[in-house]
Amino acid sequence: MFYIIGLGLCDEKDITVRGLEAVKGCSRVYLEAYTSILMVQKERLEEFYGKQLIIADRDMVELESDEILRDADKEDVALLVVGDPFGATTHTDILLRARSLQIPTQVIHNASILNAVGCCGLQLYNFGQTVSLVFFTETWKPDSFYDRIKENVDLGMHTLVLLDIKVKEQSEENLARGRKIYEPPRYMTIPQAVTQLVEIESLRQDGILSPSDTLAIAVSRVGGGDKHERIVSGTLSELNGHLPEAFGEPLHSLVIVGKRVHPLEIEYAQEFAIDKENWRRVAEIVYGCALD
Amino acid sequence: MFYIIGLGLCDEKDITVRGLEAVKGCSRVYLEAYTSILMVQKERLEEFYGKQLIIADRDMVELESDEILRDADKEDVALLVVGDPFGATTHTDILLRARSLQIPTQVIHNASILNAVGCCGLQLYNFGQTVSLVFFTETWKPDSFYDRIKENVDLGMHTLVLLDIKVKEQSEENLARGRKIYEPPRYMTIPQAVTQLVEIESLRQDGILSPSDTLAIAVSRVGGGDKHERIVSGTLSELNGHLPEAFGEPLHSLVIVGKRVHPLEIEYAQEFAIDKENWRRVAEIVYGCALD
Repeated sequence: MFYIIGLGLCDEKDITVRGLEAVKGCSRVYLEAYTSILMVQKERLEEFYGKQLIIADRDMVELESDEILRDADKEDVALLVVGDPFGATTHTDILLRARSLQIPTQVIHNASILNAVGCCGLQLYNFGQTVSLVFFTETWKPDSFYDRIKENVDLGMHTLVLLDIKVKEQSEENLARGRKIYEPPRYMTIPQAVTQLVEIESLRQDGILSPSDTLAIAVSRVGGGDKHERIVSGTLSELNGHLPEAFGEPLHSLVIVGKRVHPLEIEYAQEFAIDKENWRRVAEIVYGCALD
Repeated sequence: MFYIIGLGLCDEKDITVRGLEAVKGCSRVYLEAYTSILMVQKERLEEFYGKQLIIADRDMVELESDEILRDADKEDVALLVVGDPFGATTHTDILLRARSLQIPTQVIHNASILNAVGCCGLQLYNFGQTVSLVFFTETWKPDSFYDRIKENVDLGMHTLVLLDIKVKEQSEENLARGRKIYEPPRYMTIPQAVTQLVEIESLRQDGILSPSDTLAIAVSRVGGGDKHERIVSGTLSELNGHLPEAFGEPLHSLVIVGKRVHPLEIEYAQEFAIDKENWRRVAEIVYGCALD
């Protein structure tokens, strides 16, 4: 059996009981190390699971899936992924490959940011499509996310914006010279994300995002409990002016509040507001929310 | 501490290790018994968790939240919910109430249908808003879901349609007479859902749903493994003509495939097609998918 097992969002204890039982019965266990990050190190997972983990980076999951799947028709092999297995396309690729090799598969689900983001107080059924925001460079500023956000904004839906992470990236020079030297990991901060959003708005000028009139909620380390989780709400400019440290450790995500927002959603997220008065004021005047 | 703990989708082993530890330390544990159903009985959960569970029905969670929260500032109390805690609005209500009573809270996340639906092969970031479909009666056919689906269809997004369940409902007569006699539980089937969709399409005639040209995927008991999980894909009329039993046990959900569908998504879901040839044909001709 080939298992893909979601680890959830925070640490070694977020695996499900079913997932833990499967891990303990496997002869090889791979830990996918690029699509996202847990808040703990590999060693702590290994100790808790009682298994050695083989790190599977992007190259390995995409290019060496047959090695991962080796003998999985005769013994149990698992690929552990942060969040839920269906957060990333690569996992459907490897499941398709297993299917073509006649290897039985089982997916063990877990929480992912796509449902856990409900912790910010916005209702999940009021979210439109999810958007990813990548690091801009001097020469490359992909802005298709703007069209997706516009589609959601036009319908009054909330948008979950996933912020870029760069893990095991090579510099252009090292890439060109074929040197397998990797840069330290980078995680987009909330102010960086807001800056990029506002930059594209000022270029495109469709009026969907406004520094002072668009409400948003920054979430970090969702599921990490009081020690780790941070939720901060405010206008885009309030979030931009906030110290990056105030948002907690990465990973960060940003939710752009849609116009169909319900007063109860505003009330709930007000608890996390940088400026509660202004949060309510913008909700009433710009979003047309009838608050008590 | 007041915990809200997601149980995941299938049975007693879908709770996370963190969730199980919390349950074991609680002096009272409530099991929410209406927003959704697990695939196992209360007794099996009690045996596995080593705790007696108090059933909390809709009335209790909505009207007697103070009883659930009683003494949670001094001891640990948990409310167990199927899926993830933020799937339903009532949970933000009780969290707000706890907050106002100065009771510390912790949410323990888990998988919900909103992310686990990725098992059908469609990418989660291609989904628009989620829609609920309620049982029609002779006199009450609420059709606002149609506008939501239309918004998604117009953008080419997939739509997750959650099908109604009726648990602990009273007949009109018993309700009128104040008799607390409840009807047996009812779960909307896939053919019932398709029939309702097509009925509203024929009334509204916006051309967003077509029996022969709209592709959809029925999922049931997601996360239940080979024994329980069923995924069936086809046109709306193929799904409608299928025996209800072929879709497996409830709960069922239906995914309407959007026009932005990627060929790899079609390839993956083809495995589950009632008629693979026709699945590919409609994807190519109607959806404009370039398949190999």
